[in-house]
Parts: sequence; structure tokens; C-alpha cells
Amino acid sequence: MSHSYPSHVTIVDVSPRDGLQNESMTVPTEVKQTLINDLIAAGVKKLEATSFVSPKWVPQMGDNSALLDALAPTRQTDVCYSVLVPNMRGFENAILHRPDEIVIFGSASETFSQKNINCSIDESIERFAPVAAVAKAQGIKVRGVISCTVGCPYEGEIDPSQVAYVTKRLIEIGSEQIGIADTIGVGTPLKVQRALQAALEYADISMLSGHFHDTYGQALSNTLAALQMGVSEFDTSVAGLGGCPYAKGATGNVATEDVVYMLHGMGISTGIDLDKLVVAGERISEFLKRPNGSNVARAIINKRRS
Amino acid sequence: MSHSYPSHVTIVDVSPRDGLQNESMTVPTEVKQTLINDLIAAGVKKLEATSFVSPKWVPQMGDNSALLDALAPTRQTDVCYSVLVPNMRGFENAILHRPDEIVIFGSASETFSQKNINCSIDESIERFAPVAAVAKAQGIKVRGVISCTVGCPYEGEIDPSQVAYVTKRLIEIGSEQIGIADTIGVGTPLKVQRALQAALEYADISMLSGHFHDTYGQALSNTLAALQMGVSEFDTSVAGLGGCPYAKGATGNVATEDVVYMLHGMGISTGIDLDKLVVAGERISEFLKRPNGSNVARAIINKRRS
Repeated sequence: MSHSYPSHVTIVDVSPRDGLQNESMTVPTEVKQTLINDLIAAGVKKLEATSFVSPKWVPQMGDNSALLDALAPTRQTDVCYSVLVPNMRGFENAILHRPDEIVIFGSASETFSQKNINCSIDESIERFAPVAAVAKAQGIKVRGVISCTVGCPYEGEIDPSQVAYVTKRLIEIGSEQIGIADTIGVGTPLKVQRALQAALEYADISMLSGHFHDTYGQALSNTLAALQMGVSEFDTSVAGLGGCPYAKGATGNVATEDVVYMLHGMGISTGIDLDKLVVAGERISEFLKRPNGSNVARAIINKRRS
Repeated sequence: MSHSYPSHVTIVDVSPRDGLQNESMTVPTEVKQTLINDLIAAGVKKLEATSFVSPKWVPQMGDNSALLDALAPTRQTDVCYSVLVPNMRGFENAILHRPDEIVIFGSASETFSQKNINCSIDESIERFAPVAAVAKAQGIKVRGVISCTVGCPYEGEIDPSQVAYVTKRLIEIGSEQIGIADTIGVGTPLKVQRALQAALEYADISMLSGHFHDTYGQALSNTLAALQMGVSEFDTSVAGLGGCPYAKGATGNVATEDVVYMLHGMGISTGIDLDKLVVAGERISEFLKRPNGSNVARAIINKRRS
């Protein structure tokens, strides 16, 4: 039973990007700014601030430059502001704002790659190679996130060897960290461990992070399974932003509050103040007029009311 | 990483009792009958059918005799129909219907025992002693469930030694199985493992079952933690009945569908047909006019619609 759990876990709150991108309502820049500053006030040290994808594809992130400009005067030196870039053009726009990290991505599913970004896995990674090279030359960290590492909406189950392959390629072009994403939340603990194990053929455990959607309610048990392998960084989304639990086709990011509650309950530090985190999640949920997607937030709020 | 997970898990669906008892709407007997038969059609082999608590305390279970009478003509010999009894009078009413198992209970928290049933832990167990003795003499199985094994709404954290003590006492009076309940859903994996470990001082692992509420979203990770210790029986509630996720003071039973999805995904059999289970949960949720509390059910239904 004795696992050597990490003593500290880094939470990467992805709500400003992966979360808001998947909400139906487009959020004004000042609301995003408040969200990000609320998260930082709660102790979040790493977050995905925005993406530099074309506003034709993702209109919700069309204010990427305006948002980073708004954040600049109060930018915290001990917080990692990460941005997702889909290509060199996005990267060129992003670096004007000196992000601490860029996120590039590849899919473990050939069909998903074709349907999602219209090119093969190999082509997508080749296109990212110069982006990663320039970023590293400029002292910007590069994180490569692999989507569909457990299951794909088109192909079904994904062979772990695909995860190993994409991990290898992303490291070859310069990724310092590898995110293992269960994009559609179909994973269960042993499958997630197999995907992580495959990535370990090429990556050190300290390079891996987990990104588990909660579509089938499995994200926390998958997080536990990953912790037991020594993974110590996880993408989460405050209030479960990014897929209202009752919306059609909800993608369902796991709520930061729920992950933090589990970690703290296990004696694993995150540096996050859970009560302040709940405040951050409540504020954005109220703005979006959506139920708070965090079980922990609802339980804490219900308890206060009773 | 290599745990010896059980190859088969017994699911005890508690929705007809623990679930419906905590819903605001009182459900007609024929609807309960349909729910139970739907669960059995889906492959559930053990369920908590009702309780024989005074209808003054729990009016939702006031039709206990009528329900068991209604179920009698189609009663399945390979299904364990379990009923909860609070005392000898309840037991005397229950045995008229020949339940396969009775559930008796004690709390690991002295304050919870006092507030909930108006007597000490020791007094509660002494009162159950003759009940358990008569049940065993009549060939009826006895399961003792321990509430508040991890946390108590009055006392906060519960010392595992309390769990060991109540386990010992319940076994002494004849309990053949011990349910370890996280009644208010505050547990996290290591705390649940400590409670189970404490019970193992007096019980064999094959005697233990887990009953984890999902109030803080932790039930599945706690289930995983229990599985890793070899626990192979879990109480769950179809559609998460027993605490609407958005209700004040929701108790939040973990959804059977979500547990079954995890187990099947890990190659652990349950004998349950997940699609049929989703049908059972949808039918009762529609009757109650409440959102389906199972993530898996919502994801499967959303997928069908898209």
C-alpha cells in the first residue's frame, strides 16, 4: 500500500484558456483578468492565460493580446504565465508579451489530428519544431501536450505505443515537459497508468503532467493513479470551467478545488488556499450564470449556508 | 505500481433505501418496485430494498412491507435483498418478509451516535446484539455498517482506533460483514485506507465493504484506494440518488454507473450491463424530475444525442 507520493504538486489552472474556450459565453477581458488575479491570490503559481489561435477558430480567445497587456502591470515574477500557440504565426504574436511558457501540442490519435488540425501527427510536430526552437532560444519554456492519450472520439482506445511515439517526437523538437491529456475523459486508472508508462520510455517522470477531463467522473481517480507513479503536476480548471456538467457534449475539465482538496487531504502541499480558490470559482461561475462545477465548492458553500 | 486488484466486485445498489430516503420527493411503491426490478435487470445482485425504521422518522420508507410484498412474486433467488433495521421492533417487522440480509449500524463517532440515534455507541451495539442473534439463528445474514469512519459533522476527523473498536463490537455481536462508511463524504484516499486498515485489526478483508459518499467528489478515488487494499464490495446508488448535486446539504451517494465504469475500465467484472443500468437511472431521475447525478450516464446520453 505504501506509495511514495510526491510531497508537493504543481497545479496548472487552465480555466482562463481551456476552461473559458469551452464555455458558450464569451467573457470580457476584464473578467478574465479578475479570474487570473483571483487564482494567483489563492496561491496558483502556474496558469494557462490564453491562446494565440486564430480568432476565426476560437473567438473566445480573440482578446489574447489585450488580456496579456492588461495583466502586464501586475505580473507576478513567481507565477508561470503559459500560453497555447498553434503555429509560428501565433507564436510570433505571443512572444511580444513574453510568456513564461508556450504550450504546443500533438495528438496520440492520427484521426483526431486530421479532424482537429487538418494534418498528420508528424506534420503537426514538424510545424512546431521551429516554434519550439525559437522559444528555447529566447528562454521561454516549451511544454508539449499530447491529446487523446487514452481514448479518441474517432478511433476509440489508443495504443500506448502512440503516446510513446508522440512523447519522443515532442522531446526531439525541444519540449521540456510533456502533458498527458485524456481529452475526452474516458480513461480509467490502469489505462491512464499505461499511457504514462509509455511516455516514460522517453521522458523522465519529473517532465510529465496529467490533464484529465472529468467527462465520465474519472478524473480524480486517474489523478490518484498518476500520483502513485510520481506525477507531480496537473492541469485543472477552477469551478470545472470548460464544460458545464449538464451541457451537451460537455468536455468537463476537472475542478481545481476537487483536486486540491484530495491532495491536501493526503498531506500533499499545493501552496493553494482552498477557501480563496472557492471564491475565485464562485465569482466566475456567477458571471457565467452557470452552476459551480466543483463538488468541493458546492459542499463548502452548502455547509456555510446550513 | 502492481496492485492485486480483485477480479470481481460486488455492487450493492443502495438507491431504493439510502438514495430515496434522502430525496425530497416521496416515491410511490410501484416506482420503487420498478427501480429495483430495473436494477436487477441490469445485473445488480445485491441491493438495499428498504428500511424498517419508524415512519415517524423516515416517512419515505413507510411502505416497507408493501414494497416487499409487491416484490415477492418476482423475487430472484440469486439476488440478495437487504433491509436496514434500527432495532428489534423493526427486525420483527422485517423478518415477516424473509430478507436475505439485515443491515445494522453503529457510528465511529460518539457525538454522531448521540445526535443521530440518541444513545452511545456501546448502547447502540448492545441493542443490536439480540437482533443479530435472532437473524443468524434464522439464517439471515447480518451486515454491520459503521458511519462516520473518516469524519463526523460534529467531531471532525475520526481516529481510526474508533473504527477498529466498532468493528470489533459489531463482529462480537455477529456481523458477518462490515461496511466502512464515509457518511459525509469528506474522506480522501489515505484517510480511507487508514480507516480500512483499522477495521482489518478485527475483520478479514473479504468482510469489508466501502460506502463512500461523493459530497466532495472524492468517492471514486476513495473507491480506488479501497480496491488497492483488496476491498471487493461497494455500496453505490444508481443516478447518484440520495443527494441532488445542487441541493442544500446534499449527502451525495456515489453513482453506481460511475463506479461500474471505472471497474470495467480496469478489467474488474461486476456482472452489470452499464447501458441497462443507465436506463434504470434515467427512469428514476425522470420520475423525480432531477438531473441524473451520474457523470457516466450524462456522458453516455449526451453522446447518443450528438
